[in-house]
Amino acid sequence: MRNIRLTLEYDGTDFVGWQIQAKGRSVQEELTRVLDRLTGAHVNLIGAGRTDAGVHARGQVANFRTDSPLPAENILRALNGMLPPDIRIRDAADVPLEFHARYSAVARRYRYSITRTQRAIGRRHAWFVPYRLDTDLMRQAAQGFLGTHDFTSFCRAGAERDHNLCTVALSAWTPEADELAYDIEANRFLHGMVRALVGTMVDIGRGHTPLEEIPAILQACDRSRAGMAAPPHGLSLEEVRYP
Amino acid sequence: MRNIRLTLEYDGTDFVGWQIQAKGRSVQEELTRVLDRLTGAHVNLIGAGRTDAGVHARGQVANFRTDSPLPAENILRALNGMLPPDIRIRDAADVPLEFHARYSAVARRYRYSITRTQRAIGRRHAWFVPYRLDTDLMRQAAQGFLGTHDFTSFCRAGAERDHNLCTVALSAWTPEADELAYDIEANRFLHGMVRALVGTMVDIGRGHTPLEEIPAILQACDRSRAGMAAPPHGLSLEEVRYP
Repeated sequence: MRNIRLTLEYDGTDFVGWQIQAKGRSVQEELTRVLDRLTGAHVNLIGAGRTDAGVHARGQVANFRTDSPLPAENILRALNGMLPPDIRIRDAADVPLEFHARYSAVARRYRYSITRTQRAIGRRHAWFVPYRLDTDLMRQAAQGFLGTHDFTSFCRAGAERDHNLCTVALSAWTPEADELAYDIEANRFLHGMVRALVGTMVDIGRGHTPLEEIPAILQACDRSRAGMAAPPHGLSLEEVRYP
Repeated sequence: MRNIRLTLEYDGTDFVGWQIQAKGRSVQEELTRVLDRLTGAHVNLIGAGRTDAGVHARGQVANFRTDSPLPAENILRALNGMLPPDIRIRDAADVPLEFHARYSAVARRYRYSITRTQRAIGRRHAWFVPYRLDTDLMRQAAQGFLGTHDFTSFCRAGAERDHNLCTVALSAWTPEADELAYDIEANRFLHGMVRALVGTMVDIGRGHTPLEEIPAILQACDRSRAGMAAPPHGLSLEEVRYP
């Protein structure tokens, strides 16, 4: 028995998300179907993060156990030959049997991209925000999320977890020519968390929410206190880190 | 009578090219339809460069004459509200009546993007070249096209012109992380020229064509002597320059 780790990129535009669902095209389903064919047995594919419908990934990680004798390099090539063009395998490697894409992960990093002008090229990978934004305020807001906090106010209702504490190691806005990118790295993420954080910081940048309100929003543990979720197409899972 | 200059971006993926054709969706047709509605009269839309099917533009320029009293800024906003998302107007301005998007242009700049690994995101805007490439040779090859030459060997057959002389002011490869970008600026371009140049330089980078052959290819004035055309989706019209 072997354990194979895949690092993959996908364009989330035409997917209902990572996870297999009753209706719609999911990344997990497409990839599982191809892995079943390639290995000749049903594969249980584990993903590091469940990206939502329309969310992209440049560094999703997944693993599966198999008895297939195919070298990892051949698996990589065969998969890219069989998969649709909106999923690409970037790396395939044998890893110890105990490696688990989700539970072994110690950190995940996401990037949210905002574009300041209307674009045709790249329109599916950045949120167009036409308003005047005070990026200094947004940078200060981002700093306010660093460290360990209860992020219940930024978690989509209905998600049940034993606790909503997340430790944020990176939370920063970077202006890039026509774009504004938000990078966040944390040990774990709650459902809809990055999009709620971005929506709230855009409210702060527009002057609709005072910067000083962030501690109160966090303390409230109430989703209705934070801003609207930013749309999914600006978000990308960039990297998953392991010990 | 006014003359309006538009600067526009489009994602060429779902277009048969700039120019109106009997069959298929062209940028010129989509834009003309919307301009006719906006101005209430038929508009004769002139484009600076006729991009082929699948070729993108970040800086196409077009102009039209109109009696509409709408300020240019309102035309810009109205067009972006009416156009499909794969065409975006970046700028609209009143210009002197004698301005002609095509004949007044003194230079055009194109970029051709090559990606060195298979990508899902951005796959429609860069050519995936899996071969090992000697980028030093490709850079030297690019330099060989600088200056004034007869580019008949890089012109798609059937295109009739009084002469095929072009003066190239910029011709350079830039490595960018996972990408390799070729920038070329010239006073004029022949049909299929950039894609033939890129195809030929990739042949040189792969070691299939000796660098020393470039002068002979140029002198032959024979399309069959140059390499295959690179695919359209790596190409973008970046800028059109006027005096």
